[in-house]
Amino acid sequence: MIEFSETELTAAVVDSFKDTPNPRAKFLLQELVKSLHHYVLKTELTFEEWELAIDFLTRTGQKCTPIRQEFILLSDVLGVSMLVDAVNHRDRGGATQTTVLGPFYVGEHKVMPHGTDISAALPGERLFVQSRVTDVQGKPLAGVAVDVWHADDSGHYDSQRANYLDEGASSRARFMTDADGRFFFRTILPFSYPVPTDGPVGELIGATRRPAMRPAHIHFLAVAPGYEPLVTHVFMAGDPNIECDVVFGVKHELIAKIEKRTDAAMPDGKPAGSSPWHLMTYEFRIKPGGGTAPKPLAAKATEAA
Amino acid sequence: MIEFSETELTAAVVDSFKDTPNPRAKFLLQELVKSLHHYVLKTELTFEEWELAIDFLTRTGQKCTPIRQEFILLSDVLGVSMLVDAVNHRDRGGATQTTVLGPFYVGEHKVMPHGTDISAALPGERLFVQSRVTDVQGKPLAGVAVDVWHADDSGHYDSQRANYLDEGASSRARFMTDADGRFFFRTILPFSYPVPTDGPVGELIGATRRPAMRPAHIHFLAVAPGYEPLVTHVFMAGDPNIECDVVFGVKHELIAKIEKRTDAAMPDGKPAGSSPWHLMTYEFRIKPGGGTAPKPLAAKATEAA
Repeated sequence: MIEFSETELTAAVVDSFKDTPNPRAKFLLQELVKSLHHYVLKTELTFEEWELAIDFLTRTGQKCTPIRQEFILLSDVLGVSMLVDAVNHRDRGGATQTTVLGPFYVGEHKVMPHGTDISAALPGERLFVQSRVTDVQGKPLAGVAVDVWHADDSGHYDSQRANYLDEGASSRARFMTDADGRFFFRTILPFSYPVPTDGPVGELIGATRRPAMRPAHIHFLAVAPGYEPLVTHVFMAGDPNIECDVVFGVKHELIAKIEKRTDAAMPDGKPAGSSPWHLMTYEFRIKPGGGTAPKPLAAKATEAA
Repeated sequence: MIEFSETELTAAVVDSFKDTPNPRAKFLLQELVKSLHHYVLKTELTFEEWELAIDFLTRTGQKCTPIRQEFILLSDVLGVSMLVDAVNHRDRGGATQTTVLGPFYVGEHKVMPHGTDISAALPGERLFVQSRVTDVQGKPLAGVAVDVWHADDSGHYDSQRANYLDEGASSRARFMTDADGRFFFRTILPFSYPVPTDGPVGELIGATRRPAMRPAHIHFLAVAPGYEPLVTHVFMAGDPNIECDVVFGVKHELIAKIEKRTDAAMPDGKPAGSSPWHLMTYEFRIKPGGGTAPKPLAAKATEAA
């Protein structure tokens, strides 16, 4: 009979997964067992620490709602999301760099006409975003769906408002590229913000004295048939938090210089309204491939219901 | 500026915990980051697999209630609980072997007089348990609090009944050892049972074709001031599941031979009532030391409220 002692236990647990029909699932679970056991042995984890971990994971799950994902946030602040992104995008082949999806890809993204002010009536400094989607050779791609979402000038996403489900989205939209691959819209300058600190992940950040800030950015998700979906952000050059992003999402190539402008008209010829305003110009290159675009949390919750 | 690429990312995340004031927390978190990152790199985890993991962990947390602990169950079936137990009990020094607490240490344990039938009116084969608590030299220890709990003859614990919180405990009690270190009680023979399979952990067990069974056992928790709390089970010899315990909790020393008896009286001189009945005789040795006894889940939930 097997004695489940310290030395024989890991082999016994690995062996218990031997009949798993899916070979990839079997590999992932057996490696998980080895990894968890190695951690316990290396750290000589105490009961009190194990209990803290059980409690932390339980509360992390219970903090999740159809529009809040505390486990994604945990994965983000441990750099796991960014590493999964990295190992799945080793060869960019000239395509735009990727970064984390983040926990705020939650709502419905409605197609809006180019030039729309997606910020609704939010206060803030005005920003005009002009962009284009091309293939890796620079050929413009028409009819690409581009979802955009960003925080407001207090650093909050629409979905963090208590009344989000009633009021609906703001600073969140979808644009379809035109024949020249272009799309453009008006909004407000997003600001740096702390990730939500009112949950278990916030406790972790606080207890470890880590800055909770993300540098200001706009999220983009570009999806076109026959191309690999592109999940990325564009960061604002000069942001004081660009060196210490709490989710490790910054890449050099994704930083855009934001120009301050005083022109009376924005690039689409319509009045700027207020002055100065800001201009972000950034182009995305996508590469041939497959893969499924991530779904917004709320859509997944609706499907599951 | 740091580029959070595959090669530099792990070092950057480890470094982000550098200001953690508690050195043990710092060590545990930095090792956790290394371990998680090593796992992602070794398995080249895909986005779909990462999403499955996020969803699995979220649902595991959300399946927990004040009297159900799905994360402890997950830790149990991955052998993590048993390994934590092992690394914290390397030198038994003659004391009884330990095993997992399990997810069913949930309710209030009321002190009952020796000889009590703790099974209340449950159907099943009658069992008389006679036991003694001594130190490692065999000296009887008086006034030791011993909590006992076990499944019924359908393999369910009282806390798995929908009306548990109203009806209260059964097959769950506390005894105080007498001057000779003894305690004894009546109950029914516990049976093998599957761990709960109606949650995410059940999905995992099903998808990997693992048997979900635990061999029949009675849980014991012995607590005395100045001694290390003893968390253990006693298993029934001959149980068909003793070689494949889903939580890896069996140890040779913890298997007791159950005697079938036809005597008219049980060892305390009182009538057996029905015949045959069963006799379990098992003695526990506890060793000097400290440590905190685990608290029942419901008590922890009350404190937290």
